[in-house]
Amino acid sequence: MDAYDSLQKFEVPEVIHGLGALSIVGRCARRLGGERILLVTDPGIIEAGWVDKTIGHLKEEDLKYVVYDNVVTNPRDFQVETGAQVYERNRCDVIVAVGGGSAIDTAKGIAILVSNHGRIYDYEGCNLVTQPVPPLVCVPTTAGTGADVTQMAVITDSKRAMKMLIIGRAIMPELALIDPLLLQTESPELIAATGMDTLTHAIEAYVSSLSWTLTDPHAIHAIELASEHLVHAVRYKDIPSLVGMSVACLEAGIAFSNAILGAVHALSHPLGGFYDIHHGLANAVLLPIVMNRNMEYSLEKYARIAKAMGADTEGLTIEAAARCALDKVRKIIEELELPSRLSTLGMNPKDIARLAELAKDDICMTTNPYCYSTEEIESLYREAW
Amino acid sequence: MDAYDSLQKFEVPEVIHGLGALSIVGRCARRLGGERILLVTDPGIIEAGWVDKTIGHLKEEDLKYVVYDNVVTNPRDFQVETGAQVYERNRCDVIVAVGGGSAIDTAKGIAILVSNHGRIYDYEGCNLVTQPVPPLVCVPTTAGTGADVTQMAVITDSKRAMKMLIIGRAIMPELALIDPLLLQTESPELIAATGMDTLTHAIEAYVSSLSWTLTDPHAIHAIELASEHLVHAVRYKDIPSLVGMSVACLEAGIAFSNAILGAVHALSHPLGGFYDIHHGLANAVLLPIVMNRNMEYSLEKYARIAKAMGADTEGLTIEAAARCALDKVRKIIEELELPSRLSTLGMNPKDIARLAELAKDDICMTTNPYCYSTEEIESLYREAW
Repeated sequence: MDAYDSLQKFEVPEVIHGLGALSIVGRCARRLGGERILLVTDPGIIEAGWVDKTIGHLKEEDLKYVVYDNVVTNPRDFQVETGAQVYERNRCDVIVAVGGGSAIDTAKGIAILVSNHGRIYDYEGCNLVTQPVPPLVCVPTTAGTGADVTQMAVITDSKRAMKMLIIGRAIMPELALIDPLLLQTESPELIAATGMDTLTHAIEAYVSSLSWTLTDPHAIHAIELASEHLVHAVRYKDIPSLVGMSVACLEAGIAFSNAILGAVHALSHPLGGFYDIHHGLANAVLLPIVMNRNMEYSLEKYARIAKAMGADTEGLTIEAAARCALDKVRKIIEELELPSRLSTLGMNPKDIARLAELAKDDICMTTNPYCYSTEEIESLYREAW
Repeated sequence: MDAYDSLQKFEVPEVIHGLGALSIVGRCARRLGGERILLVTDPGIIEAGWVDKTIGHLKEEDLKYVVYDNVVTNPRDFQVETGAQVYERNRCDVIVAVGGGSAIDTAKGIAILVSNHGRIYDYEGCNLVTQPVPPLVCVPTTAGTGADVTQMAVITDSKRAMKMLIIGRAIMPELALIDPLLLQTESPELIAATGMDTLTHAIEAYVSSLSWTLTDPHAIHAIELASEHLVHAVRYKDIPSLVGMSVACLEAGIAFSNAILGAVHALSHPLGGFYDIHHGLANAVLLPIVMNRNMEYSLEKYARIAKAMGADTEGLTIEAAARCALDKVRKIIEELELPSRLSTLGMNPKDIARLAELAKDDICMTTNPYCYSTEEIESLYREAW
């Protein structure tokens, strides 16, 4: 009997969470065998002062370090390759990523290249990274991506102008060191966009065909927390709402790393590759449109989501209860004043056929409650345009 | 600022769960770099046929193996040391444990000795295991201990007749491979005793002072599942109730490995060391007695536990709601016809003063909602006698 297809999995890196957690980054890097640290970050994080603080904590442990800050939104193949050269030239042994999903994905790409060699394209797909990668400590500065707890990296192939998805247990970070204080320097726009990414992760992981007992409670709790804290975090940036969003992001990450995602991400990935649109903004436009079409294939789960979002579904039919989830999502997007059309984000309707082909092949489509045809995906893009 | 004390952690090994999971044990051992497997198990598991099945799957991957079955309830120091010699003599590289908590703890002890050397006593306490241990794949055959997902091992010091607790991230198994089918050959008595261990884990982890967002949902779900399935599993051993108990055990393990336990375990550990009493049976006697005294220090949590156990607490005072949890636990113990006194399990009241001193120093006491004095512990033992 080969049971592999019916088995379910749960994999999470070591997580340390709490206000002030950044202060132990040096101790953690040292414990993982670090002596020379590659610190992957971006210029905004340097300006916010977090890199100086990180360096201070590395020095407390007498660690040597080199900073690599050639990181942009939707990180590129060539940036990963340059980073790998910096790691090798400086004979680093541990990578510390301080930043959002882009810095963390760049760090994962670097980790792959310095241990597995070749080009980053060689690893697009599932489980193609075979050699163990150097220890990676992730210190997220946004509550959005969850990349600090996932076994996925998204790197843009600059020649094909498309996002490559790299999945595999080998690229799971060694440690997610999560300090909600780091969210204080995010702009309200970034909190909104990354927060919508977190909400999308939680919703797609919950309705995913791979969701199970160990992922469901985390997905639901992430939906509860994001519904409660996102708008408040954008408006006031107070500590309780930032802590709430940081836990939401963490639990959504735990859920989707194991249950994978759905059609929102399948459609959103090509938009990042083609137009360099911020991933969270693309998700915010696509989420209600996909939910609306998905709903009939997973009514009970959407009704449960509605409850988690605070809707009073008592006495409603299952259809009406499920629809409350959509209303709640639309309300959050409205309150955050996020764009609701892909046209305003720069999408060109002439590309829809090519975008739809890529979305159809995206691995996230396989775990959506319903597998859309290329024609149906085109119509979703048109609806979102 | 040193934030370490206020930080919270979550650490879980890779988990693969499902009916038939045993069939991939060879592939998993191979993937972890195994060529020569030390298979740690006990004579009962051999008799039940699971070792032959395991060996078949190891052979499918052309793995060499040696079986070590010198494992008893409350595993002893010398058994761990002999196992380490077998590992070294056969130049093994991966350990596969197929059994209950005793086989898994023995395997952890062997893993410590073959990589860190010295005697097993050298590692009693927290984080004293400094060298990485060989990959350990755990295939539990009981739904009780959760040792397959914890960073703890309990080994009996045969000279001092006491249980040593070894805690540390270094001894976290590489993989928990959980196949509920393996529970089918458990005796009803063993399902009852180990199931009470699971229920105790979940309750103590939930009321622990270290419980947090990431452990709570797993603790509560484990309480729900154990309340729903334990009595049925003992009576009928049907697949749905065995699956339910296997998930309960898994989630309770995830919760307590990160939130630690409480006074029931602190009082239960010395009983195992002194009289070789089965851990689950000792817990079953102590759980209602400790709950009764603990309750006032954590009323809300006990009220939540009552709800998870199916009690209708609507309209009750918080004290009355909390008390429902105790009633539910007593009812399960009664239905399982488990002993309710330590005297029937062989405890000698003359030892109470010494037992209480050991319980007072047990690390599990530090996370109990209230830290009992030695005198109070003595009175708890007397009440349980």
